Amino acid sequence: MLAGAPPRPPRLLVTPGEPAGIGGELLLKAVASGERNLWTIDDPDRLEALAKCGDIDAVITTVGTSHTDTLPLGHLGVIPMIWPDEVNAGVPSPKNAPQIIQAISDAVSMIKGGKADAMITNPIQKATLTAAGFAHPGHTEYLAELDRGADGEEKYPVMMLANAALRITPLTIHVPLRDVFALITPERIIKTLRLMANGLMMDFGIKTPRIAVTGLNPHAGESGTLGDEEINLIMPAIHQLNEEGIIVTGPHSADTLFFEDRRQEYDAVLAMYHDQALIPVKTLDFHHGVNITMGLSFIRTSPDHGTALDQAGRFTARPDSLIAAITMARQMVKNRADFMGLSYAAS
Amino acid sequence: MLAGAPPRPPRLLVTPGEPAGIGGELLLKAVASGERNLWTIDDPDRLEALAKCGDIDAVITTVGTSHTDTLPLGHLGVIPMIWPDEVNAGVPSPKNAPQIIQAISDAVSMIKGGKADAMITNPIQKATLTAAGFAHPGHTEYLAELDRGADGEEKYPVMMLANAALRITPLTIHVPLRDVFALITPERIIKTLRLMANGLMMDFGIKTPRIAVTGLNPHAGESGTLGDEEINLIMPAIHQLNEEGIIVTGPHSADTLFFEDRRQEYDAVLAMYHDQALIPVKTLDFHHGVNITMGLSFIRTSPDHGTALDQAGRFTARPDSLIAAITMARQMVKNRADFMGLSYAAS
Repeated sequence: MLAGAPPRPPRLLVTPGEPAGIGGELLLKAVASGERNLWTIDDPDRLEALAKCGDIDAVITTVGTSHTDTLPLGHLGVIPMIWPDEVNAGVPSPKNAPQIIQAISDAVSMIKGGKADAMITNPIQKATLTAAGFAHPGHTEYLAELDRGADGEEKYPVMMLANAALRITPLTIHVPLRDVFALITPERIIKTLRLMANGLMMDFGIKTPRIAVTGLNPHAGESGTLGDEEINLIMPAIHQLNEEGIIVTGPHSADTLFFEDRRQEYDAVLAMYHDQALIPVKTLDFHHGVNITMGLSFIRTSPDHGTALDQAGRFTARPDSLIAAITMARQMVKNRADFMGLSYAAS
Repeated sequence: MLAGAPPRPPRLLVTPGEPAGIGGELLLKAVASGERNLWTIDDPDRLEALAKCGDIDAVITTVGTSHTDTLPLGHLGVIPMIWPDEVNAGVPSPKNAPQIIQAISDAVSMIKGGKADAMITNPIQKATLTAAGFAHPGHTEYLAELDRGADGEEKYPVMMLANAALRITPLTIHVPLRDVFALITPERIIKTLRLMANGLMMDFGIKTPRIAVTGLNPHAGESGTLGDEEINLIMPAIHQLNEEGIIVTGPHSADTLFFEDRRQEYDAVLAMYHDQALIPVKTLDFHHGVNITMGLSFIRTSPDHGTALDQAGRFTARPDSLIAAITMARQMVKNRADFMGLSYAAS
């Protein structure tokens, strides 16, 4: 990984998430489809049985945390652990919750210790973890906590949804629409835009990122006649970024920002709230959406779906989004290495 | 038009809207492209000059209000009037405002008098009309006022945006997002859904319409953890409609409602606010959007763009949306006739 070291393909670590969900079977499908150099933390026997049951052509290779750097095609590297309770598809066991949390924590340690290059997280079932004492608002916040600097400095994780058509970040996420207004501040917009610009340069290989910002109100407030948040909160933040030399435009009417011609004008969009961001990205391409967390010290992507307990064990769920998350993480590792002047082999 | 009368093609009346905008040139382009049986109210000499200047192959045929029922291909029927002030492309004259308003009123009279079958309205410049004393909040509200019943009963116009991919109605439209919450009531949702169901049956030829309703909050409130409007306001309205025998589902997460597979599940969507409705419809197909007004006694469509003063007189604006509005109005006339047991000839 260091400059001068022989180039090798990125090592991608996929966390198990909720083992009663579809994560495991999708990972096996991804390996069978030709995705290379994937590792996970799980019970090798369970995965072996899962592959057999689903007739998925993936070889389980048990490895230590000091594993080798490359795996043969069709192999999944597994850092072994044992689930406290039997894993039954579709039925999360609270007894397994501590191990789900531990696997996330171990994955962060491995990445921070240089033993993997990026992390792809399979979905968790938050209610199950919360019942077992998990005190974080979500997966991402837990990762940010684990990633806290040696000086204790808090990380500010920023979600970006991406597919081939669009990259978009919601400024506010899982809050009632009523509560969005209090969360829109110039400070938050500025902080988010800086992290987006940084991420686009470092992990997406875009030298001069162009970010479009939506308005909050219809027609971006129509010069103040349909709301004043654009004038009072959004425009000052955009001006600040422009003064820092970053190309940020807007606030734009959100309804006319997402058709093909307009999408050529920017590299990413900052939207004000959940539906304003997720409607366009999921409407444009539902099956290949990837969730990227910017603002952490390491690269993290995740598929844009949940545990799908009702589908688990049937082997019918599509691995498209997990594969897209893997592919994007791999590309991000390479882009970041290029940005840092390092190099990776093609995988 | 009456049962037993010889079938004839629908007579479509296109209002001029703001003559300094792109409406006139788009109408001429629509005629030249083969759209049949179009009438307008305008100055025939102005249109003749416009066609010549833009090299558009459309014949101006001046007719009285008691015009014949069919026009030859390539002809535009013009009910003549005179603009008080010279029409200059891109520069609306306040002196012409009364005539713009009069043309809308005349068009309604013609339709209500059985002299036309549907109305397609070219865009107005609201500020120009307001300055001239136009006291209505917008074009649609003025039409509703003109359409008031003999008993004075108020019409409740409902906007629907439609293209080949999606039909969607925003429950609330041009208000700041902050003001949406007070406008979401079970009564308004019920009234809107009834008009939508009626319109889908009568004007879209759908015998058993299926309407999907979005939630207001992310993930439609996630069982109340992300907002309670779904439980308190939206679900009671849906139940009411279901009791009336109308297929209404939801509240659905808006972000996962608009990709191709999901769109097979419904005939139209009721969304809670402007961007939630207009982002998906314009993202799916920007150029062919049609604005339909349901809840009037007559059929009215309009293109989904404004006067585009900056483009007027250059003949570069695309007529796609006006043509889509014309095509849809024509189909709606036929569907309504079928619904009423009447018939029209193919045009």
